[in-house]
Amino acid sequence: MTHPSPFSVGILGGTGYTGLELLRLLLPHPGFDVAVVTGRQQAGSPVEAHWPQLSGALNLRFSPPDVDLLAACQLVFCATPHAAAMAIVPELLARGVRVVDLSADFRLRDLDAWERWYGVVHTARETQAEAVYGLPELNAQAIPGARLVANPGCYPTATALPLLPLAEAGLLDGRRIIVDAKSGVSGAGRKASEALLFGAVAETFKPYALGGHRHLPEITQVLEDAGAKTPSVVFVPHLVPMFRGMQVTTYIDGLPESADALRRRAAARFAGAPFVSCLAGETVPDTGSVRASNQCRVNYFDAPEGTTVVVSVIDNLNKGAAGQAVQNANLMCGFAENLGLDLIPVGP
Amino acid sequence: MTHPSPFSVGILGGTGYTGLELLRLLLPHPGFDVAVVTGRQQAGSPVEAHWPQLSGALNLRFSPPDVDLLAACQLVFCATPHAAAMAIVPELLARGVRVVDLSADFRLRDLDAWERWYGVVHTARETQAEAVYGLPELNAQAIPGARLVANPGCYPTATALPLLPLAEAGLLDGRRIIVDAKSGVSGAGRKASEALLFGAVAETFKPYALGGHRHLPEITQVLEDAGAKTPSVVFVPHLVPMFRGMQVTTYIDGLPESADALRRRAAARFAGAPFVSCLAGETVPDTGSVRASNQCRVNYFDAPEGTTVVVSVIDNLNKGAAGQAVQNANLMCGFAENLGLDLIPVGP
Amino acid sequence: MTHPSPFSVGILGGTGYTGLELLRLLLPHPGFDVAVVTGRQQAGSPVEAHWPQLSGALNLRFSPPDVDLLAACQLVFCATPHAAAMAIVPELLARGVRVVDLSADFRLRDLDAWERWYGVVHTARETQAEAVYGLPELNAQAIPGARLVANPGCYPTATALPLLPLAEAGLLDGRRIIVDAKSGVSGAGRKASEALLFGAVAETFKPYALGGHRHLPEITQVLEDAGAKTPSVVFVPHLVPMFRGMQVTTYIDGLPESADALRRRAAARFAGAPFVSCLAGETVPDTGSVRASNQCRVNYFDAPEGTTVVVSVIDNLNKGAAGQAVQNANLMCGFAENLGLDLIPVGP
Amino acid sequence: MTHPSPFSVGILGGTGYTGLELLRLLLPHPGFDVAVVTGRQQAGSPVEAHWPQLSGALNLRFSPPDVDLLAACQLVFCATPHAAAMAIVPELLARGVRVVDLSADFRLRDLDAWERWYGVVHTARETQAEAVYGLPELNAQAIPGARLVANPGCYPTATALPLLPLAEAGLLDGRRIIVDAKSGVSGAGRKASEALLFGAVAETFKPYALGGHRHLPEITQVLEDAGAKTPSVVFVPHLVPMFRGMQVTTYIDGLPESADALRRRAAARFAGAPFVSCLAGETVPDTGSVRASNQCRVNYFDAPEGTTVVVSVIDNLNKGAAGQAVQNANLMCGFAENLGLDLIPVGP
Repeated sequence: MTHPSPFSVGILGGTGYTGLELLRLLLPHPGFDVAVVTGRQQAGSPVEAHWPQLSGALNLRFSPPDVDLLAACQLVFCATPHAAAMAIVPELLARGVRVVDLSADFRLRDLDAWERWYGVVHTARETQAEAVYGLPELNAQAIPGARLVANPGCYPTATALPLLPLAEAGLLDGRRIIVDAKSGVSGAGRKASEALLFGAVAETFKPYALGGHRHLPEITQVLEDAGAKTPSVVFVPHLVPMFRGMQVTTYIDGLPESADALRRRAAARFAGAPFVSCLAGETVPDTGSVRASNQCRVNYFDAPEGTTVVVSVIDNLNKGAAGQAVQNANLMCGFAENLGLDLIPVGP
Repeated sequence: MTHPSPFSVGILGGTGYTGLELLRLLLPHPGFDVAVVTGRQQAGSPVEAHWPQLSGALNLRFSPPDVDLLAACQLVFCATPHAAAMAIVPELLARGVRVVDLSADFRLRDLDAWERWYGVVHTARETQAEAVYGLPELNAQAIPGARLVANPGCYPTATALPLLPLAEAGLLDGRRIIVDAKSGVSGAGRKASEALLFGAVAETFKPYALGGHRHLPEITQVLEDAGAKTPSVVFVPHLVPMFRGMQVTTYIDGLPESADALRRRAAARFAGAPFVSCLAGETVPDTGSVRASNQCRVNYFDAPEGTTVVVSVIDNLNKGAAGQAVQNANLMCGFAENLGLDLIPVGP
Repeated sequence: MTHPSPFSVGILGGTGYTGLELLRLLLPHPGFDVAVVTGRQQAGSPVEAHWPQLSGALNLRFSPPDVDLLAACQLVFCATPHAAAMAIVPELLARGVRVVDLSADFRLRDLDAWERWYGVVHTARETQAEAVYGLPELNAQAIPGARLVANPGCYPTATALPLLPLAEAGLLDGRRIIVDAKSGVSGAGRKASEALLFGAVAETFKPYALGGHRHLPEITQVLEDAGAKTPSVVFVPHLVPMFRGMQVTTYIDGLPESADALRRRAAARFAGAPFVSCLAGETVPDTGSVRASNQCRVNYFDAPEGTTVVVSVIDNLNKGAAGQAVQNANLMCGFAENLGLDLIPVGP
Repeated sequence: MTHPSPFSVGILGGTGYTGLELLRLLLPHPGFDVAVVTGRQQAGSPVEAHWPQLSGALNLRFSPPDVDLLAACQLVFCATPHAAAMAIVPELLARGVRVVDLSADFRLRDLDAWERWYGVVHTARETQAEAVYGLPELNAQAIPGARLVANPGCYPTATALPLLPLAEAGLLDGRRIIVDAKSGVSGAGRKASEALLFGAVAETFKPYALGGHRHLPEITQVLEDAGAKTPSVVFVPHLVPMFRGMQVTTYIDGLPESADALRRRAAARFAGAPFVSCLAGETVPDTGSVRASNQCRVNYFDAPEGTTVVVSVIDNLNKGAAGQAVQNANLMCGFAENLGLDLIPVGP
């Protein structure tokens, strides 16, 4: 198995959990060579001083988030909070760098909606217009040629994957789709916040964002991209006292097909997809079975009274963020989609 | 504050988590005197050898589950697995002992349904006929005079409490009610099972019982008891990597009232209820805020597209089991409903 | 059981974990009436907005940390970080208020050492001179008459209690005492720090403060107060991925007595102590058995080669902080030592 | 990088945590081909039905623990409880199969001691005589030629590695060595036991085996093998509420060298060791930094009064079991020691 010489890549924002997961995936990846990792406050210090997990695995120091340094890379992963990538991505593209943006900046085509949900003015509207939404199971045709891939949010990924076959078949047209989603705390990032302390998270469970979560319009958009006409999505996220993992339970009334038929439909739809597994029979996916991997596991169940229950699990840091970003980068660079991503889940 | 001399009580099944929680609540309770605690395998050994938490708090040895010993009590709490209580409760009643049964044996009036869900023949059908369903917020009139109270399941308690005002107002008639429920692992009891090991529970999240959970018919029954005509309930439980706590997110389409109106309705309904708190505004209940207490906290939210989201939390071992059992026993014995139960939640 | 009219008490610093635990213990306490709770940033807002666990349990708003407000109380608990109490305690004492200080400000008699360990100038040296070290099992005679009690640190409490009988018998004179201590993360307080995030604490274990921990001189002082001559203490704390609980394993070479003799010695020493339990035989204390209680459980073991292993457990927030503070306040106010503190541990 | 055709390997005992970790490491390993995985009760069912983490990663069914099946492999990993391997290993060796035994059966040379500690008769004494103790950092010369490697216990591995340089320099001769060790619960295996339930492990901490732990004689043996004369070891293990990870704090009095000198000594000693990292300065190892990897991280500290504190961390399932077993197999098969083992720790 030979590869062309590795692509030089940079990570904008390497001090958060997503940055760490990117490094864990990219450092042993045969197709990429990590040349730059930025960290504003840590600039100048060794990456392994911040991330002792990486001791001996790299010999890099954090750089300041400088566009000239990043422009020397062939591809840059942006792992910054929202509203940061849009300030730098246009220039990176102009200088010939391709970008996988893990933030929300380029995901929504309706930028007026984006501005309402995110509360800031979008400063790179033309750039968004060329962004490809990086859900490889949906957009595998467009991603390879993209200069800019908007890596999906974790909730939209976990929610949309098992619904793609239904949306494509028109089964979701006009349907009410109730999405009850649960995420480990890593989804909130690595912020020194009282809400994320061990004492605030352990041994407690709660819903949040009941007034509306920013991933709602993204879920609707991706379902519509897959063919669903006027789906009506209700989305309530919950915080689970664990670090990694995301599970989504989706309720749909009135589908004309049984769970068994949906299973067959999904199995056929994802036959060639290396990262989506449709479970057989009544097997229930759990987040532990995909821990630290790029896998998504899904299944479908008949509930009483004509309700269909759709269950999916991912690792929010991996298929929900860094893993999917590498999957996109693989496609952009002409590699096999799963190059460097066939990690067996760690378990327990 | 003076009380009549305490009632002598027994606990049938004192070696599980519910038995321990009963002991924690009953030992300092001014109205009850714990005279008998049974444990088949532990019979003869001190209770504190099994439960070091109780060292110094009692001077009792486990008894065998012997009806003569229990018949010497005035009231017995049955904290046994299902199908055990129905073998002994009729005789206890015949000998003048009042009973709060924490198992499922006497909860369902439809005993044919019970037999289907539990897979065993019900051997005490006449006894069930006199059982009062022990949700004090619903049946406060009937409980004081009952000889046998069937203590509700944890999921039905957490689900039904916030829906009582809606059911009573006819708002649930004919509605589809989607109940997405999450429980800490203590709800599964203290069984030496691979599924309950630390390694199987920690850092993982999953739904279960997708083929149907035994608490479903109980949820339907209690909503109907509260006045809901032909409600249509979909119920999916999930296992949370924590020990205590239960949270329920319920989705209802098409209600004619706003969340704010529901909040006012619930606040009025539970004005005199010591253990149900209706939160104000957009405050979201979390399980940590009721840990180790008999409290239930609820709130109502407007989701897009006309869906109402109902959120409730309890401690499944307390309001979902032992605390509610003591609440029922208080009513049966003429005590204030909250006697011995006004414990401030432990937190975190 | 009648009590004199309750003492009016204040809490300086009610927004941290220790403040919350004080409130949980004091609100139902028959001898104390919580009149003031301070929170600089939260001043003016209801205490239950910050601590939903307390909903319905009090009707108080946070006050600014104002000496005039606190001076209206008869007794004030200081639950502030170090160096804050010494700025206000002298004035409180001058105005006739008695104080239990849970911070480190008045624990060490050697104020030069204090200044070295804490890195600040001590501004209330005369006040320290009258402080009584509030380990009730050691200083029960002096505490009732004290105006100012310095509540011990969690590590010194858990370490010293099982060693008191040895120190008093001269068994520790000149001995090397190796203290390997482990604490849940609540001991680090409720600070928005990256080191205390769920992601930094869960599923990891580590020692810390290997360059020296501030509780070391306090451990030495209390052992010397108990009679140990020139003990030589090595102290290494560790952080456990849990919220509450502290366990200490202490190694001493060359003791002339067997573990069994030490057990008997300790049982006699603590016969009248309501909160110290000497376990029988080879029973091993675990932190779960004292969760959310003021209990300390200890035992002694013979290791090979003449080493004695001493094991003790406490809840660091309770016997290691708030519970012990209430125990001291009980003594200061003439109440039974265990008034309001006989809570059965919550378990699991 | 080319390899000879892979060695065919079997796993005796593939249903426990160690078996799973072996599979996670071996399935993507370029030098090994997993041909047989045994599971007595699961025989005939797909491995991925038991371990959903492995879905898609293998196409194997569990075999019964049959010697003929295993004899077709070139190398067998025994991941059974103690006393099982000694019943089958002699025949495997006789049939030309090489063995890495992860159980305790062949670790101790003093088989009378072994029988006392393990409470069973050793039935393969001659076989033990040829076993090589598989600590590669100590026995790298003997392992490549061994037919049978006794893979070290987790505690001896974590304890001995940082002490090897000291033992080899004679610094441990006649010293008292106090080993305070802490392990995640996976070290106890995957047994359906009440002591290993989530409810028994989470939010609690405790020492155990205070009457003596089976790893004590193994620790002493390996230190003596490294050159320590009459070391005197005290060993107390503790159970940490986490799944993976092991940390050891070792206390030694009277060493003639400073921590800094020991650091330099260790850095030189392990310069060529791919899996032992000596940290610089006062950096403290934590278990999170080695999670799911074969790394051991160590450091040395000066405590007051002439005590040296040695700190080490490993992942008990990896360097403490499966990872080290693969490291040994690499050496036995002529591969690079780190082939397939250079996994970046997962973190958090």
